[in-house]
Amino acid sequence: MDNMINTAVTQAVEQANAFTISIWFLIGAALVFFMQCGFAMVETGFTRAKNAGNIIMKNLMDFCIGTIMFIFLGFGLMMSENYLFGLVGVPDLQIFTDFNNFPWSSFVFNLVFCATAATIVSGAMAERTKFISYCIYSGLISLVVYPIEAGWVWNSQGWLAQLGFVDFAGSACIHTVGGISALIGAAMVGPRIGKYKDGKPRAIPGHSLTLGALGVFILWFGWYGFNGAAATDVTQLAQIFATTTVAPAAATCATMIYTWIKNGKPDVSMSLNGSLAGLVAITAGCHTVDILGSLIIGIIAGIIVVIAVEVVDSKLKVDDPVGAIAVHMCNGIWGTLAVGLFSKDSDTLGLLYGGGFAQLGKQALGILSISVYTAVLMTIIFFVLKKTIGLRASRDEEVRGLDLTEHGLASSYADFMPVPQVLTGKTTTPEMVPPEKAVEVNLLTPADKKASPDHPKLTNISIVTKQSKFTELNTALTGIGITGMTVTQVLGCGMQKGNTEYYRGVAVEMNLLPKIRIDIVVSKVPVKTVVDTAVKALYTGHIGDGKIFIYDVEDVVKIRTGETGYDALQDHD
Amino acid sequence: MDNMINTAVTQAVEQANAFTISIWFLIGAALVFFMQCGFAMVETGFTRAKNAGNIIMKNLMDFCIGTIMFIFLGFGLMMSENYLFGLVGVPDLQIFTDFNNFPWSSFVFNLVFCATAATIVSGAMAERTKFISYCIYSGLISLVVYPIEAGWVWNSQGWLAQLGFVDFAGSACIHTVGGISALIGAAMVGPRIGKYKDGKPRAIPGHSLTLGALGVFILWFGWYGFNGAAATDVTQLAQIFATTTVAPAAATCATMIYTWIKNGKPDVSMSLNGSLAGLVAITAGCHTVDILGSLIIGIIAGIIVVIAVEVVDSKLKVDDPVGAIAVHMCNGIWGTLAVGLFSKDSDTLGLLYGGGFAQLGKQALGILSISVYTAVLMTIIFFVLKKTIGLRASRDEEVRGLDLTEHGLASSYADFMPVPQVLTGKTTTPEMVPPEKAVEVNLLTPADKKASPDHPKLTNISIVTKQSKFTELNTALTGIGITGMTVTQVLGCGMQKGNTEYYRGVAVEMNLLPKIRIDIVVSKVPVKTVVDTAVKALYTGHIGDGKIFIYDVEDVVKIRTGETGYDALQDHD
Amino acid sequence: MDNMINTAVTQAVEQANAFTISIWFLIGAALVFFMQCGFAMVETGFTRAKNAGNIIMKNLMDFCIGTIMFIFLGFGLMMSENYLFGLVGVPDLQIFTDFNNFPWSSFVFNLVFCATAATIVSGAMAERTKFISYCIYSGLISLVVYPIEAGWVWNSQGWLAQLGFVDFAGSACIHTVGGISALIGAAMVGPRIGKYKDGKPRAIPGHSLTLGALGVFILWFGWYGFNGAAATDVTQLAQIFATTTVAPAAATCATMIYTWIKNGKPDVSMSLNGSLAGLVAITAGCHTVDILGSLIIGIIAGIIVVIAVEVVDSKLKVDDPVGAIAVHMCNGIWGTLAVGLFSKDSDTLGLLYGGGFAQLGKQALGILSISVYTAVLMTIIFFVLKKTIGLRASRDEEVRGLDLTEHGLASSYADFMPVPQVLTGKTTTPEMVPPEKAVEVNLLTPADKKASPDHPKLTNISIVTKQSKFTELNTALTGIGITGMTVTQVLGCGMQKGNTEYYRGVAVEMNLLPKIRIDIVVSKVPVKTVVDTAVKALYTGHIGDGKIFIYDVEDVVKIRTGETGYDALQDHD
Repeated sequence: MDNMINTAVTQAVEQANAFTISIWFLIGAALVFFMQCGFAMVETGFTRAKNAGNIIMKNLMDFCIGTIMFIFLGFGLMMSENYLFGLVGVPDLQIFTDFNNFPWSSFVFNLVFCATAATIVSGAMAERTKFISYCIYSGLISLVVYPIEAGWVWNSQGWLAQLGFVDFAGSACIHTVGGISALIGAAMVGPRIGKYKDGKPRAIPGHSLTLGALGVFILWFGWYGFNGAAATDVTQLAQIFATTTVAPAAATCATMIYTWIKNGKPDVSMSLNGSLAGLVAITAGCHTVDILGSLIIGIIAGIIVVIAVEVVDSKLKVDDPVGAIAVHMCNGIWGTLAVGLFSKDSDTLGLLYGGGFAQLGKQALGILSISVYTAVLMTIIFFVLKKTIGLRASRDEEVRGLDLTEHGLASSYADFMPVPQVLTGKTTTPEMVPPEKAVEVNLLTPADKKASPDHPKLTNISIVTKQSKFTELNTALTGIGITGMTVTQVLGCGMQKGNTEYYRGVAVEMNLLPKIRIDIVVSKVPVKTVVDTAVKALYTGHIGDGKIFIYDVEDVVKIRTGETGYDALQDHD
Repeated sequence: MDNMINTAVTQAVEQANAFTISIWFLIGAALVFFMQCGFAMVETGFTRAKNAGNIIMKNLMDFCIGTIMFIFLGFGLMMSENYLFGLVGVPDLQIFTDFNNFPWSSFVFNLVFCATAATIVSGAMAERTKFISYCIYSGLISLVVYPIEAGWVWNSQGWLAQLGFVDFAGSACIHTVGGISALIGAAMVGPRIGKYKDGKPRAIPGHSLTLGALGVFILWFGWYGFNGAAATDVTQLAQIFATTTVAPAAATCATMIYTWIKNGKPDVSMSLNGSLAGLVAITAGCHTVDILGSLIIGIIAGIIVVIAVEVVDSKLKVDDPVGAIAVHMCNGIWGTLAVGLFSKDSDTLGLLYGGGFAQLGKQALGILSISVYTAVLMTIIFFVLKKTIGLRASRDEEVRGLDLTEHGLASSYADFMPVPQVLTGKTTTPEMVPPEKAVEVNLLTPADKKASPDHPKLTNISIVTKQSKFTELNTALTGIGITGMTVTQVLGCGMQKGNTEYYRGVAVEMNLLPKIRIDIVVSKVPVKTVVDTAVKALYTGHIGDGKIFIYDVEDVVKIRTGETGYDALQDHD
Repeated sequence: MDNMINTAVTQAVEQANAFTISIWFLIGAALVFFMQCGFAMVETGFTRAKNAGNIIMKNLMDFCIGTIMFIFLGFGLMMSENYLFGLVGVPDLQIFTDFNNFPWSSFVFNLVFCATAATIVSGAMAERTKFISYCIYSGLISLVVYPIEAGWVWNSQGWLAQLGFVDFAGSACIHTVGGISALIGAAMVGPRIGKYKDGKPRAIPGHSLTLGALGVFILWFGWYGFNGAAATDVTQLAQIFATTTVAPAAATCATMIYTWIKNGKPDVSMSLNGSLAGLVAITAGCHTVDILGSLIIGIIAGIIVVIAVEVVDSKLKVDDPVGAIAVHMCNGIWGTLAVGLFSKDSDTLGLLYGGGFAQLGKQALGILSISVYTAVLMTIIFFVLKKTIGLRASRDEEVRGLDLTEHGLASSYADFMPVPQVLTGKTTTPEMVPPEKAVEVNLLTPADKKASPDHPKLTNISIVTKQSKFTELNTALTGIGITGMTVTQVLGCGMQKGNTEYYRGVAVEMNLLPKIRIDIVVSKVPVKTVVDTAVKALYTGHIGDGKIFIYDVEDVVKIRTGETGYDALQDHD
C-alpha cells in the first residue's frame, strides 16, 4: 500500500517535473531567439556606420528566410522519424497536416538553433557581400546544410548520436558549422577595400563599441537558454548555468591578460570576443565538465581567440571584421574536442579523467566529419553564387556603403555625419569616366605671379568634393609632395540629380549632401599644379564633382618652431 | 483502489502544473514589461536626435503614470468581480485592503498589457506633442479607455467574452486601440514641420536605425511572453511560440520582397515594421490558427503595413513617424478578423475551415465596437486637451527640439553634434521680432567696386548663425538666385545669456554652442544683396543672431568642366 | 485511506512545486546576470564618449574577475556550512572536489548577486580611475568584502539572519554596500577635471541618454529576477512582482514632479535615476510590504534621489557621474529601514502597522553594521591602492580619454567625431615642455600695417591644433580680451609619430587625426598679440602642436545691429 502510494507520488512528481522542464525548454528557446538581437548588435557595432542598416537587415532576414526554409524542408531533413541510414530524414508535410500532434516545442527549439548557425556567417562577410547572395546562401544553410549535419547529432537516429559523439548544445553542429562557413565565405568574397596594404592588414575599427558590448551581454544572457534549454532536471540545469558562467569569465580574463602582455594594453573589443569564445567552447560539454574543466576550457578559449584572430588576419589574410572565424570555428572545434578531455560522466569519460582516448576519438571523428561536410557544401554554394549572380558588391557600392547602394538608405544615423575615411587599394577612377578627363584649367588670376623670390606667396586651395573621393585625392596630392592638409566635413547644398532613394516609401530629397572640404596651403608648389592634380583625381564628368576655391593667405605660423611663411610649411606637422 | 490512485496522480499533476503555468504567467508578464524597452528604442531610433530624450521620457512615464492610474481605478474597471451589464466593473479598494487575497498575478499581468496599449500612441505623435498633454492623455488611456474595452473581452463577464469574440492576446484590445488612438492623435496634432511640402510628404529619417532594430528584436522577444503568458498548457504554449515565430517571419519576408519590387531596393526600416506587423496580426489568434494560417496572416500583414504607411502618409496626410498606425491599427484589425477566417478550433471555426460566417461576424462586431468606442473617447480627450492646455509644442520648440525646450536637455548625445536639417513650411520669423527689422547695412569696403566687367570679383560670404535659422536663410537665398552653398557645423564660443538649463540638478554652462557656417561664393550677384537678404532672414534682434564675414576669393574652379571664375559659379554643382 | 491519498497528493504537489520554483530560481539568476548589461549601458550612457570603451571593459571585467574570486574564496566565506561565530564561513574546496553534491543553484545565484554589488562602484568612479586599480578593488569586493557581510544576512547561520534582520533581495547587502564603496571611492579618487570651478559643480553631460535609458529598462526587467528569484511560492512571487512594479513607478513619478517643480522642467536623466531609486528601495521589503507601503517607499525614494544627487554634488563635492551614491547608498539605507516601518508580516511587523520599534531597531542595527564594516574595509583598500599603484589616471590620460590611454582604442565610435569640450581647472601645460617655450614669432607681413585709424584692418586668425588643447587656448585668449570665436572640428592629415595603438591585434594607422580649427576675427587687437598668445598656450615642442593661418577679411557684419567692420566685433554675439 505504502509502496503503491510512494510509486504514485514519484509518478506524479515525474510527470509534473516533465511539464515544468518542457515549459523551461520553451523559455530557453525564447532566450535563444533573443541571441539574434545579440548577433545583430555585435556585428553592427564592430563594422562601419555606412553598412549598419545592411548588417541589421541581414541579421533580420536570415532568421525570417531561415524560418520559411526550416518549415518547408529543414526540420524534416533534421528531425523526421523516418530517418535514412543515420544520415538524413525524409521530409513530410506533417507540419501542415497534423497541427495537434506535431512536435511544436521541438520545432521552435530547433528553428532558433538553426538560425544561430545561419547568422554567424554574416559578420565575417560583412561590409562587402551582395545582399541578394546573402539571402540565398543563408537560406540554403537553413534549408539543407545545417539540418543534415545537425540531424546526425541531435536526431536520436543520427549516426553521430548512435556513435556516442557528444555535442550538448552545439559547439560543433552550430558554431563550428557557422565558423567554417564564415571562413570559406570571407575567403571567397575577399577582403574589404583598404583592409590590406602592401600585404599587411590594417585596422578598420567598428563604429560603435557600445553596441558591440550590448550584443555580447545579450548573447551571454541568451546563452543560458542556449546551453540550458535541453537540461533534463534542475540539478543538471544548475550545473550548466555554472559552467556557462565560469568558462566565459575565465576566457575573458585570459584574453584581457594575454592582450595586456602582448600589446601593452588590455584590448576591449578582443576581451568581448573572449567572452564569446568561452561561451562557444563550453557549449559542447556544458553538462558534463566540472568546474576545473570549465576554467581550463575557458582560459584556453580566451587565448585561442586572440591567436586565431591574428592568424586569420595576418597569415591567412582573410578579412573577418567581427572575429567570427576565431570565435565560432576555432573555439567550436576546441570545445568539441574538450569534451573528450574533460568529460566527467562515466559514459563519456574524458582522457584527463582516466577515460582513455575513446571519447576523444569520437569527438575528433565527429568534428572532422561535420567540418568536411560543411566545407564541401559551402564551397559549392559560394562558388556557384560567385560564378552566377556574384558574391561581392561593386567597388563603388562598397566605398559608398551598402546602406545607400543596397537599401537606398542615405544613412542609418541621419542626424550625424560620419567621418571620412582613408581607404587604400587600387585607386581606379570609376568606369563611367570618359577619356578626355584631363581637363585643361586656365586660371583667371595666375596665383603665383605675385610671389617674390624671398617671400613666396601663400595660397589656400580649398577643395569641396564627395567624401568617397578622398582617398584618390589624398593619393594624388601625396604624389606631388603635399602631405599636410585639413579636412572638414561639410554639407553641400544644391540641386542634385541621380537615383531616387526611398525612406519608408517616400522619396528622400537629399539637398544637403555630405561633402568634405580639403584645405591646403601652398607656397612654392605652384597652385596650378595642385589644381590640375586635384581636378585629375576628382574628375568624373558628373554633377557633384565639386569645386576648388583659391584664397590668398597673409601668413602662416608653425607653432612648434615659430617659423613663418614658406618655412612653416616645410614639414608635416 | 487503482482508480483512486490514478485520480490522485492526475489531481496532483494538475495542481502542480497549474503552479508551473502560474509561474510562467509571471515570467511572461516580465517579458511584456520588457517590451516597454522595445517600444522606447523603436520610437527613439525612428525619430530625430533632438527629441530623443523626450521620447524616452514619454515611454518611461506612460508606464509609471499608467501604473498609478491602474492601481486606483483601471484594474477595478476592467477586472472587478462586480461587473455591470457586461460593460464595466465597479472599482473597489481591495488592492489596498486585502493584500493577501488580491489577485496579484492578474494585476501585474493586466498592468503590463495596459501599458502596452498606452505606449503605442507616443510614436505616432512623436516630435511635436507637448509633454504635459502626453502625460495626461496617456494617463487617461490607462485610467479608463483601455480598462473598459479590455474588460469587455478579458473579464469573463464582459459582453464580448460572453459573445464568443476571440482576441487571445490583444490584436483588438491593445493594438487596435493603441493604433486608433495614434491615428486620431497624430491627425489632431498635425504633421511635423517640414513633413509636407506642396502637399507631398517628405522623408524625415530617424536618427538611429540600430536603436530601432534593437527595439524590434526586443519587442519580438517580449512577444513570446505577450502571446504566450496566458497559455494553459505546454502544448498550447508551444503552438503559440510557433505561430508567433512563423507569422512575423513571413510578414518580414513579404515586406522585404514587396518593397524590393516596388522601390527597387529592399527597405530596412519598413522590413522592421513588417516584423511588428506580423506579430500584431498573429496576436488575436496565436492559439487557434495553424501553421498555414500563420503564414498567410503574416504575408498579408507584411503587405498591409507597406500600403498602410503610404496611405497614411500620402492620402490621409497624417504624419506618423514610426508607422504605429499601419502596424498596430491596420494589423490589429486584420489579425482580429483573421481569427474568423483561420481559426481551427471547433468552437470558433473560421470561414476558410468550414465554420461559416458566424465567428467572422463576431470578430467584426467586436472590432467595430472596440474601434468606435476608442475613436469616440479619444477624440473627446484629444479635443479637450487641444482646446485647453494645447496638444502641440510651439513652432520654436519643435524646431529647436523637445529635449531642450521641454526638458532643458541640451542634447541627448552631448559629445556629438547633430547635422543641421532643412525644414520647410511657413518660414515665419518668431514672434519676438520688432518691426524695424530690415536693418540698413553700410558696407565698409564696397565689395563690388574692384570688379572689372571682364573679371567680376569673386567674394566669399561666410555667415555664422544658429542651426535653427538655416531653413529661413536657405529659402531667402534661393529667392535671390543663390543655390550653391557649403554648410559647416561649427561651435560658436562666447557669452550667452538666456534660460538656465539643468542637467541632474546642476546648471549647464553652454559656452560652446552649436552653430552653422554657410559659405557662399558670389560673383555677379552683389555682395550687398546677399548680405541684406541674409540679415533680413536671420535678424531677430536678440543676441545670437550671428555674424557675416566677407573674404576675397582669388579664383574658383569647377572640377567637372574646368571652368574658372564667374563661369564656374553658373550652375548648381 | 483518503487521508493517506490526500497526504500523498500534497506531498507530490509540494515536491513538484519545489522543482518548479528551483527552475524559476535559475531563470531569476539569468535575469540578474542580464543586469550587468543594464549597468554597463547606464554607466556608459551617462559618461563621455572618450571613456566608453573603458567603462564597458570595467563592467565586463568586474563580473569575470569577480567570478574567479567567488569560486576560489568568496562563496566559501559567504555560504559555507562551517560558519564561525555567525561572522564568517570557512572556505573549502568542495566546488572542485564534489561536483555532484555542490549547491550549484546557490552558487550561480549568489555569484550574480555578488557581481551586482561589485559593479555599482564603477559608475561613481568613472572617467578617471586607473583600470588596473579598478580590477584589483572590484576583485577584492567579490573576494572578501561582499561575501562576509552578505553571509551575515543570507547564510542562515549569520548573526544578522539569526537576529531577524530582513533584507530580502539586498537593499543593504548589495546596494548600500555598493553605494558606500562608491562614495568612498569617488571621494578618494577626486572629481573629474572640469567638474568643479570656483567650488561650484558644473554639468558634464553623458554622451548617450538613449543608452542610459536602455540600461534602466534592462535593469528594471532584470530586477524581477533580482527581487523575485528567492520567492518560495507563486503567491509571494506575484506580490513581489507587484511591489517591484509599483515602487519604481511611484518613484519615477515623484522624481519627475519634484524636478519639474524645482527646475521648471521634468528632468529626463534624473527620472531614469528615479526608477532605479524606487527599485533599490523596495528590494529589502519587496516580499513583506503591501501596495500602500510600496507607493510610499517609492515616492520617498524618488525624492531622496534628487536631493542626494545635489548634496553629493554640491555639498560633499564628490563627483559621481551616474548618481550611484544617491541611487544605491541612500535608497539602499532607506529601503532597509522602510522594512521596519512598513512590514506587514506578523513576525517582522513594522512600526506604522503597529509592530513597535523592534523590527525598525533590528533594521537600523543591521544597516549600521554593514555600513561601518564596508566603510572601514573599503577605506583601507582604496587607501592602500592610492598609496601604491595609485587610484587615478594622469591628467593627460584623463583629458585624452581612458579609451585611448588605457586601451589603445582611438575611439569607441570610430566613424563619428566627438565635439571638443571645454574643460577648466588648472591649465598647466604638460610636464614635457622645455623652458624656452615662448618662441619669438616674426610675422612675414605685419598684419596691422595696412590698417588706417578710421578703418582698422580686419584679420582672420585661423588656428589648427589638438582638441585637447582647446581649454588652454580658450583661457589664454580670454586673457587678452578675445571672447568671440568659431570652433570647427577638422581632421588633420599628415605623418604622425607616437605610440602605436592596436585594434584587434593590428596596429592602427592614425593618419587622419581629429583636430580643431579656431577662427578669430580681430581688428584693433594686434594680430601679433593673438599669435603670440596662441603660440604660448599651444606650444609643447612636439610634432602636432599645429599651425596658425592668417587671412585678410574684407568686412564683417553683425546681424543683430547691422554694424560693420570694427564695430561689429565689439561684443560677444
